[in-house]
Amino acid sequence: MRAKVYVTPKQGVLDPQGLTIQKALYTLGYDRVGSVRQGKYFEIQLQNQLTDEEARQLVDKIAHDVLTNPIIEDYRFEVER
Amino acid sequence: MRAKVYVTPKQGVLDPQGLTIQKALYTLGYDRVGSVRQGKYFEIQLQNQLTDEEARQLVDKIAHDVLTNPIIEDYRFEVER
Repeated sequence: MRAKVYVTPKQGVLDPQGLTIQKALYTLGYDRVGSVRQGKYFEIQLQNQLTDEEARQLVDKIAHDVLTNPIIEDYRFEVER
Repeated sequence: MRAKVYVTPKQGVLDPQGLTIQKALYTLGYDRVGSVRQGKYFEIQLQNQLTDEEARQLVDKIAHDVLTNPIIEDYRFEVER
């Protein structure tokens, strides 16, 4: 089984990496682009014996406790067999 | 319109951030987890006047030329209205 976790800066939180990329894109002539937000993406292999519900609980706990700073970041995830 | 771009280390390329997280998870007692790979995730706002095809071409070019190091990273993206 595999989980994909997406971590993004919360709305309203300054995202200096995204802003830098946005400015770079304008400078390079990509003028049809608006805001850019940068986040993190994780692929996690899980033991196949886990049930879907166990896997979801495990990944939710890992995402909340380890991968995300809940004060400034949101996360979402998918689990696939 | 909005594009989501996912950048991941190519298979076989060492991913020190992912390895560090993997070890941290074991140390914290998450022993039902296998390998962890860390990538980047971007959300890009695009002008609504673009056709789907124009948007896809634009995002493909930005992902390839700006957001990815094609020697060590792969990317994929989605465009949504």
